[in-house]
Amino acid sequence: MADPIDFYFDFSSPYGYFAATRIEELAVANGRLVNWHPILLGVVFREVGTAPLTSYPKKGEYSFHDFERTARFHGIPYNRPPQFPLATQAAARAMLWTADNVGEARAIELAHALYRAMFVDGVRIDRPEEVARIGAAVGLDAEALAKGQDSEPVRQRLRAETEQALARGVFGSPFIIVDGEPFWGFDRFAQLDAFLKGTL
Amino acid sequence: MADPIDFYFDFSSPYGYFAATRIEELAVANGRLVNWHPILLGVVFREVGTAPLTSYPKKGEYSFHDFERTARFHGIPYNRPPQFPLATQAAARAMLWTADNVGEARAIELAHALYRAMFVDGVRIDRPEEVARIGAAVGLDAEALAKGQDSEPVRQRLRAETEQALARGVFGSPFIIVDGEPFWGFDRFAQLDAFLKGTL
Repeated sequence: MADPIDFYFDFSSPYGYFAATRIEELAVANGRLVNWHPILLGVVFREVGTAPLTSYPKKGEYSFHDFERTARFHGIPYNRPPQFPLATQAAARAMLWTADNVGEARAIELAHALYRAMFVDGVRIDRPEEVARIGAAVGLDAEALAKGQDSEPVRQRLRAETEQALARGVFGSPFIIVDGEPFWGFDRFAQLDAFLKGTL
Repeated sequence: MADPIDFYFDFSSPYGYFAATRIEELAVANGRLVNWHPILLGVVFREVGTAPLTSYPKKGEYSFHDFERTARFHGIPYNRPPQFPLATQAAARAMLWTADNVGEARAIELAHALYRAMFVDGVRIDRPEEVARIGAAVGLDAEALAKGQDSEPVRQRLRAETEQALARGVFGSPFIIVDGEPFWGFDRFAQLDAFLKGTL
């Protein structure tokens, strides 16, 4: 089988959420698997010298409008989160802990549930107790998840994922790398699809 | 007839160039006219606190790759300019002078020629003599154009266009405003089209 698609994202990234709703069908249609890599975009922004879209004058106001319109255009459920952006350490570490201790499939289920909680239900996924509650709703042991995501090995795993992403040239979310080819943004999915089909 | 589409762009913007190759067919298909507004993105960046894409670490390298790949994906001729970005005062003022003194249709022809010169033929369109030469090639009086673009009223016109763009929330290139709805980026043309068709 061809190499998997590396999918880098931050749990506070709306375009990362949109990408997460579509990456698996795109991969399957092209005979690929997806490796999910939650990262901390704040660390990436500091390294690259950028900032969240919504922190810029003019661009910020437009961006909130674009999140909503892009969701509508693609038929993806979305409600503007009451708090944005949020710290995503707890969410990212919970996903990594689940991948390592329960399994990749369940970790992806958790990722979808965390994104929906943030971008549909307005849940504060920066709060470890909310992350544990969402984990329980997808069948995980809430207590083990809460303890696990806060452990030193998992903290170290997230730092390593973020550093590896930086080393590979990742500077935003979503960011896809496949067969050495980088794609930044949900709005490059048509190009990603064409690339995987060999027509680009 | 419905209101025209306001199309803001900088002559050194690759995505502005891509948009310029498609904006007219999109407008015609939706029963609209296009008002072309060359602006100075440098002034806009200073106001918003951003910088050219290619000036950021990691993002810069990716962007040059994305310009080339996006052009290929859409079947638009493109060669990486040997100098990038370029100052676009002369190009923008030449277009405004032509619109006011010769006519809008000829000004749009000049805009296409300037963009092709920069993004296909690698011409230094920051040089007034190159702008005049390109003007002559589309049938304009090179001497009148050179003198006109350097005149105080035309300088003032460009400042006013850029200030008006800022006042309307423009923060990048291309930037489209139609019926009060803003669209940033060539990659939002599908949404722009859907908006004009009333399906978004």
